[in-house]
Amino acid sequence: MKRQRDRVTDVPSRGHSTPPSLDPCLPLGITMGDPAGIGPEVILKSLARTNQRSETRHQKPEIRIIGSRRVFELEQRRLGTQVDLSTVDDSIAAPARFRMGSAQKDCGRAAFEALEAGCEMLETGRISALVTAPVSKEALRTAGFAWPGQTEFLADRLGAKRHAMLAWTPSFKAVFVTIHLPLAEVPRHITAGAVLEKTVLLDEFLRREAGDVKRAASLRIAVLALNPHGAEFSLGEEARIAEGVRRARRAGINAVGPVPADAAMAGECGGYVAMYHDQAMIPAKLLGRDSGVNVTLGLPYVRTSPLHGTAFDIAGRGVARADSMRAAIALAVHLAGQ
Amino acid sequence: MKRQRDRVTDVPSRGHSTPPSLDPCLPLGITMGDPAGIGPEVILKSLARTNQRSETRHQKPEIRIIGSRRVFELEQRRLGTQVDLSTVDDSIAAPARFRMGSAQKDCGRAAFEALEAGCEMLETGRISALVTAPVSKEALRTAGFAWPGQTEFLADRLGAKRHAMLAWTPSFKAVFVTIHLPLAEVPRHITAGAVLEKTVLLDEFLRREAGDVKRAASLRIAVLALNPHGAEFSLGEEARIAEGVRRARRAGINAVGPVPADAAMAGECGGYVAMYHDQAMIPAKLLGRDSGVNVTLGLPYVRTSPLHGTAFDIAGRGVARADSMRAAIALAVHLAGQ
Repeated sequence: MKRQRDRVTDVPSRGHSTPPSLDPCLPLGITMGDPAGIGPEVILKSLARTNQRSETRHQKPEIRIIGSRRVFELEQRRLGTQVDLSTVDDSIAAPARFRMGSAQKDCGRAAFEALEAGCEMLETGRISALVTAPVSKEALRTAGFAWPGQTEFLADRLGAKRHAMLAWTPSFKAVFVTIHLPLAEVPRHITAGAVLEKTVLLDEFLRREAGDVKRAASLRIAVLALNPHGAEFSLGEEARIAEGVRRARRAGINAVGPVPADAAMAGECGGYVAMYHDQAMIPAKLLGRDSGVNVTLGLPYVRTSPLHGTAFDIAGRGVARADSMRAAIALAVHLAGQ
Repeated sequence: MKRQRDRVTDVPSRGHSTPPSLDPCLPLGITMGDPAGIGPEVILKSLARTNQRSETRHQKPEIRIIGSRRVFELEQRRLGTQVDLSTVDDSIAAPARFRMGSAQKDCGRAAFEALEAGCEMLETGRISALVTAPVSKEALRTAGFAWPGQTEFLADRLGAKRHAMLAWTPSFKAVFVTIHLPLAEVPRHITAGAVLEKTVLLDEFLRREAGDVKRAASLRIAVLALNPHGAEFSLGEEARIAEGVRRARRAGINAVGPVPADAAMAGECGGYVAMYHDQAMIPAKLLGRDSGVNVTLGLPYVRTSPLHGTAFDIAGRGVARADSMRAAIALAVHLAGQ
């Protein structure tokens, strides 16, 4: 099922890493994430509401939960939801004993196995796309997981040569040139090649999301400056960003920049290329409120996840909001159908 | 009129740099800014609307425009407004000849003289507070102005030992620890002392703004982290920020932090301490739309200005929005009356 893709070239040919259109009639897979976090809770809350809605709309996506049935039985009892748990794949052994709200090795092991199973199901054509619930990096590490996070694992496991994280909200979509780095290390990672690569991935995403109804504004990309006011306080980074933008334009992408980040938000753009974590996450959280989605670009399959973590501080209390998981499911269904 | 203030100490005593309550019946001074920029236009538009409103509300603040009458006559003809130009102080010689939309030496000279005159009027008790229209740093420099910007000039000229820029909107108020620096140089400027100083200035402002109706939430301050997720990717900056917060709390300030910047925006705080320009300017522009205000804290007088520049690209076309200037005037009137 996996597509062969070209080597990354200086000016990449277009569209070659867009995920293939899998059969949208296949079920959607959702990995349970860390059992001690809010993953199982937000999954159940999302599906409970999806069930209700589908009775009137007849658009219920078929779901395959990839995890341990016992974990969901416990959570369902706590929440009082009535989700049909026969949709739980149940190939993953539940952690023998665990308490909510902390990083534990056996929970990390179960989360890791669910991710592995999700990849396997994508590759064997049993699910159309993958939504992943939040994991604890600490728990994963103690269970022998050797990647910085789920995104890097999936990129490696599914053979992506280049990938990027996209913060998605209905009104603000941004891809990151750097993400989990100390701010002091960001400037030296801002290269023309990195800017080009992320801009190409964003352009491919925007085209896929728009489907048949492409409007010019929805494909316009603003590449953000690193420094305040852009070039005025630059130590050379803006020249490198400008070179990345020039190369993207030569590849036919409607990109402009570097645009000072505070000024860019007033514009009408389909998407933004951000230089570092907070530059995109601040507007994404403000504009997306609780319903932002994390999308991994560059994979041969659609993968989304909520734009929040395990929230150990509120896990097991039934108070987590499921808006972000709901949005992640809806976006995965939309993208898998394109 | 200027108050004597103590030396800055490690844990400063509270409230000693709050501007004194001048007579609110004194007129408000507005410097014209660069004549080739949108300053005169947004001043006239603001006053035209203030005039209209005041007929029904009887709350018209008396205004003294500090600039050249000829500049405002030209602009008034272009706009068709009917502002009484006898309110123009007219102590500044108009630039002999200038064209809209570019940095010119004689415009810089006039803008510089207006600023000087504004300080003089504050010190001699002829105005209650100062609103400054935008200047061109380039034009000012060619006219021999030796400060990085208006804020630094005013702090120096009016004898402020410590000062800070505040980005003000009705729902988001943030003070900056660093502002006009390359991002790569920001981390080494994040010190416990700098965090403490800016937090104290913000606290003083929030108390003054609230006046007699202080609610606890309006005085709560979130000090933002520098790095993504806060401590997770820190190279030591978050420990220094935490030390600054501890010292502020010992001085009786209700400050918390370092809080990851993207998470902090969801909270309910009276104000924020931002580590660098875009960290506060992105939310300020998003939340304040076109009506953000720049307030200089730590001066012995109230000073506000619009949160935008000369906008040379649209100067002279009559299309500039005056919301930010209007908000700057309203906030100066409010603060001068406290």
